[in-house]
Amino acid sequence: MRDFLPADVRKREYVIGIIKEVYESYGFEPLETPAVENLDTLTGKYGEEGNQLIFKILKRGEKLRQETGDKNQEGEDSSLLSPVSRLADLALRYDLTVPLARVVANNKNELPKFFKRYQIQPVWRADRPARGRFREFYQCDVDAIGSESMVVEAEIIAAACEILTRLGFADYLVRINHRELLRSMVSESGIQNESDAMIALDKLDKIGVDGVRKELLERGISEASASNFLSVVGGDTSNADLDTILELCDGLSVRIDPSLARGLSYYTGTIMEIVLTDGDFKGSLGGGGRYDGLIGMFGKEQIPACGFSLGLERILVVMEERGMFPPEIAESTPADVMVTVWSEETIAESLKLANELRSNGLRVTLYPEADKLGKQFKYADSIKVPYVCILGESELAEAKVTLKNMQTGEQKTLERNAITDALKK
Amino acid sequence: MRDFLPADVRKREYVIGIIKEVYESYGFEPLETPAVENLDTLTGKYGEEGNQLIFKILKRGEKLRQETGDKNQEGEDSSLLSPVSRLADLALRYDLTVPLARVVANNKNELPKFFKRYQIQPVWRADRPARGRFREFYQCDVDAIGSESMVVEAEIIAAACEILTRLGFADYLVRINHRELLRSMVSESGIQNESDAMIALDKLDKIGVDGVRKELLERGISEASASNFLSVVGGDTSNADLDTILELCDGLSVRIDPSLARGLSYYTGTIMEIVLTDGDFKGSLGGGGRYDGLIGMFGKEQIPACGFSLGLERILVVMEERGMFPPEIAESTPADVMVTVWSEETIAESLKLANELRSNGLRVTLYPEADKLGKQFKYADSIKVPYVCILGESELAEAKVTLKNMQTGEQKTLERNAITDALKK
Repeated sequence: MRDFLPADVRKREYVIGIIKEVYESYGFEPLETPAVENLDTLTGKYGEEGNQLIFKILKRGEKLRQETGDKNQEGEDSSLLSPVSRLADLALRYDLTVPLARVVANNKNELPKFFKRYQIQPVWRADRPARGRFREFYQCDVDAIGSESMVVEAEIIAAACEILTRLGFADYLVRINHRELLRSMVSESGIQNESDAMIALDKLDKIGVDGVRKELLERGISEASASNFLSVVGGDTSNADLDTILELCDGLSVRIDPSLARGLSYYTGTIMEIVLTDGDFKGSLGGGGRYDGLIGMFGKEQIPACGFSLGLERILVVMEERGMFPPEIAESTPADVMVTVWSEETIAESLKLANELRSNGLRVTLYPEADKLGKQFKYADSIKVPYVCILGESELAEAKVTLKNMQTGEQKTLERNAITDALKK
Repeated sequence: MRDFLPADVRKREYVIGIIKEVYESYGFEPLETPAVENLDTLTGKYGEEGNQLIFKILKRGEKLRQETGDKNQEGEDSSLLSPVSRLADLALRYDLTVPLARVVANNKNELPKFFKRYQIQPVWRADRPARGRFREFYQCDVDAIGSESMVVEAEIIAAACEILTRLGFADYLVRINHRELLRSMVSESGIQNESDAMIALDKLDKIGVDGVRKELLERGISEASASNFLSVVGGDTSNADLDTILELCDGLSVRIDPSLARGLSYYTGTIMEIVLTDGDFKGSLGGGGRYDGLIGMFGKEQIPACGFSLGLERILVVMEERGMFPPEIAESTPADVMVTVWSEETIAESLKLANELRSNGLRVTLYPEADKLGKQFKYADSIKVPYVCILGESELAEAKVTLKNMQTGEQKTLERNAITDALKK
């Protein structure tokens, strides 16, 4: 997990700002859920690997004492439970889809018939960190709840493409596939455990065909089934939903890929992924799919749903490598101007000037103490402030201000009320 | 912990937007830290009560198995540790100040000599929830690192006041006090344990003088010392730092209050709190102080620091009660216009119209499936979209669009290229 210093935060906020703007232009609304969920809500939703990677929160106070033998276990006999269920009751959010499903099931009557929401928040996975992969990372999710129509898929894909275009990417490709298609390929191949096959296939990009074959064998699938599966997956197949999506996404970079699996176990229909085709970045910038069965796990009603999640960290890694940030973001400064302080006695004057400039819409930082002017310039240089307002002895006497351009070194002494105009130019 | 539905998120973002804008105008820069810290980093920084309220995260995998007897404890003998230290290694962020101190100590060479940062992120406390108090809540912190000058206090107070003014508050008051002053009052009164006295005094607003007296006695402080303490605290006292702050905050609503304590144990100098004076809202909207000793706990160097934290949830509660949100926030809609879908065959046409309108800067939601027009209007009504673009049989035949004003019911059939202009009016 990482700290983000100011320059990092500005880049992150620039990308998030564009993502929000595009999602809002498609009529999606913002939702936020707590970082902490009940452990029960998350368990069993992400497949076997996912369960292991959930961060669990220790019980507190009396409940913890009951489980750790400061007191012998009284009341319920929990000795048969696993250590994790005995000791933890809460967990950190693992994705934004399961919390959404819970919110939809719990707020059925307050939400519109079709609920279109976006959500940009961090999630946590106790994964082994790797390049571009972190234990805390932001997901930028967009989901449409309540319709089985492929219009939903088409709009979600169009929004993701528009975001990448507006960020400056030209080489993205949306790969789509369908769980029904995969399911029939799995059973044709004679493989019993569908989720084993999905988890292995999902790693195709990273470990190649031989790697997937090896993992299938390790998961107890026979040599023959594995080979069948790998050959079917490379072949041609057709599916009505996928054909509709292609039609509605006319003009966008979308392609059917029968080998696309996606690791998560809750998908039921379309699955999709967005990848870059140039350069050496492997892996997807985001992915998603249809999960018509998930919301029903939290409520009585089965409600169709489809969503897409962009990975903020991956987008940032590639944008950094490719130098894609606009100059005002890449070279941001903490303020437009710094005001100097001449002496303890004149601090109030410097404060007053700073406030005047602020009330004219400028970002102003005040040197916090009386100090040699040279040191104040050195500091202004170190934070890359473009201008300094010098309020020295003579300036104070004449009710003027000297404006110094830190790049050229040029200085001009001006009337106080002319400073804002000079700076805005 | 709460879910925030779209209307809530919009109000939160409105307030956060103003807070950011004001902090940026004072030259503060954004910082973000992970939700999860090492447990060691947090333990012992918040006083006895704070330690109890930290959410701890269960160890994972092998480390957990070693501690829970699936395996006998091999390697280090941890049997003497408390259950919490044996079972947990990470914890949820409890405030934004300790993470800042850690960041400053760890990044000394990358940060400017005076580091002015703001940070707006959630924190978690395993507290008993109460009205306006939650287990997950946002803090909006601003801190200036590296200077002992009271200019820092003055600017931080001015920024907090400007934020509340811009949000529409008129009845706020900043109360300030000084830990040195409190310390001398505690020792004058003959009280041994300073932090007991601080924790009890901090509750003065909530439980009154008698409540504080009772708590002091319960904490083993003698009747005589408690009485001495409570009388000194009500009296007049003077302090050079506080006098300087009052002078630099000329024109702002700031007052010295010798009974102000603040619960956190890391403050060393000025302490401050912002309260509302009208209405029935008890408690503060934010508070802070100087903590010149905290950063030294994480690094070799002792670095002076001072900060202030606004509580987002409390501000929102009062703004809601007082009806302070501007209409465009209070009555926000998910889109400017909805586009209807006539039939399965004409979906692509509706998609195209939606995209045209979006590319003209409008927020457009598309009804996701072919359906009776009446149902589509009913949905548009339910999400409070002000306009609907009807693309029906006759409109498609004539390459026109009917624009319906959902408030008046008025309908006009227009050329396609006239729609954006009509909507922007």
